Amino acid sequence: MTDGHIGGSEFDRDTAVRPREPGVFDADISAGWSISAAINGGYLKAMLGRALGRTLPHPDPFTVTAHYLTATRPGPAVIRTSVARTGNTLSTGSASLFQTGEDGREVERIRLLGTYGDLDALPADVRTAVKPPQMPPYEHCVGVDQAPADPRPAGQVEMLHRLASRLDPATVGWALGKPSGRGEIRGWFAFADGRDADPLALLLIGDAMPPTAFDLGLSGWVPTVELTTHVRARPAPGPLRVAIGTRNLAGGFLEEDVEIWDSADRMVAQSRQLARALLA
Amino acid sequence: MTDGHIGGSEFDRDTAVRPREPGVFDADISAGWSISAAINGGYLKAMLGRALGRTLPHPDPFTVTAHYLTATRPGPAVIRTSVARTGNTLSTGSASLFQTGEDGREVERIRLLGTYGDLDALPADVRTAVKPPQMPPYEHCVGVDQAPADPRPAGQVEMLHRLASRLDPATVGWALGKPSGRGEIRGWFAFADGRDADPLALLLIGDAMPPTAFDLGLSGWVPTVELTTHVRARPAPGPLRVAIGTRNLAGGFLEEDVEIWDSADRMVAQSRQLARALLA
Repeated sequence: MTDGHIGGSEFDRDTAVRPREPGVFDADISAGWSISAAINGGYLKAMLGRALGRTLPHPDPFTVTAHYLTATRPGPAVIRTSVARTGNTLSTGSASLFQTGEDGREVERIRLLGTYGDLDALPADVRTAVKPPQMPPYEHCVGVDQAPADPRPAGQVEMLHRLASRLDPATVGWALGKPSGRGEIRGWFAFADGRDADPLALLLIGDAMPPTAFDLGLSGWVPTVELTTHVRARPAPGPLRVAIGTRNLAGGFLEEDVEIWDSADRMVAQSRQLARALLA
Repeated sequence: MTDGHIGGSEFDRDTAVRPREPGVFDADISAGWSISAAINGGYLKAMLGRALGRTLPHPDPFTVTAHYLTATRPGPAVIRTSVARTGNTLSTGSASLFQTGEDGREVERIRLLGTYGDLDALPADVRTAVKPPQMPPYEHCVGVDQAPADPRPAGQVEMLHRLASRLDPATVGWALGKPSGRGEIRGWFAFADGRDADPLALLLIGDAMPPTAFDLGLSGWVPTVELTTHVRARPAPGPLRVAIGTRNLAGGFLEEDVEIWDSADRMVAQSRQLARALLA
């Protein structure tokens, strides 16, 4: 039973990890966060982030980088963590996700490196004047699953059932066959079961919106090579505004930048990924 | 003897690593890349990047993240690498830098995670229209060491002797006691001995210009927590244009974004770091 609250939601259930021995966790990869045959990289990052947070003495991810090595499958997995340093303010460690391959040997799926701290211990100063992205209110935005020409049929995107995210109508031309070429998508992130976002959810959100590659006219697969998230503040309750942009598509790779803003107009996270552009 | 060419320059000499056994390298940390008592994080990242590149089957860093744990000192060090995956196109691994602490035990200084590939094997397509930053030619820019009120006296910044970098006069107000508050610095990167930049040098450059925190009015120490660099193309010869920006100084932390452009107007690298703002 899930209940839509932090600790009891679909996201918490599906990112749960069970300690096997110090620093080692058992986990079950849910097919509920898949996009066609692939498991979403943000979901997997949140699961590894949860395991690393239970190994380190500090609770909150401050900066976490995941490298995606081989395709994770639904089913059992084991997460092994390694502590690099524990300090008064910050602690750093690694985590790797393994699954048993067809030949019975362990295969590493993801390797992650992160530094953790305590968001609630930070001073409240905000000295810069970055402004949240402008977009219509949640009620006037478009459900991601309603995009008529999304190249990913909703039935194959199990993850869409977990989310209630919506897009700024000004940035959905790509779903109507008219990508703007600017590489920009804006929208609201929300969980379908009403769970509010916490720092672990911010690790998910860096890879949970449609790829900006769609707005550049690409329709093929854009597998993430590496995803780095900086968590800067604990998000206030409610849907989060997300602005995504790609500036450089070159040499078969692209970067995707994501800024995440909460209902108190605070930029709570920045993420960037390097992805391969497999041209369709 | 150094000669200013790739392979024979000060940078190559000071980032050299000597294989001790498979995956393990001995190194000597040079005091020539220090800023006051601290060794520059970009220099150390380049050294670890060199060691990881010798362990993995692919030559070029594509995306590399370093977390800085404890203060590295000039002198001997050992680098231990670990391969996560080797593939046809990309390979991934970790590297850690250790030094012997005062109690005789090994202390981990830096942990790095990187994915490598072959830049020369990438297609030549560049489909986006990002534009290089506008700044005066190298000859009309200001030597970093000539800034009269740079809070770091040149005599204490050994690294300045390794570099011939210059800053856009429009972004040196901070050195004259008049930070703009915009958090922007632009300039040219060059090695003092004339060495051209290669992908390893791009790992250095992400942390080799004055901190944008100075342009926000901070004058204290801004230690790097984490530094991620995406290398997107092999740089053409000549000085590189570098644009640095900080948009969010909040809660005692700030991000610093760096874009690096070569003489062929190609964006060859993007980097971002998370740093602590220790208010003076």
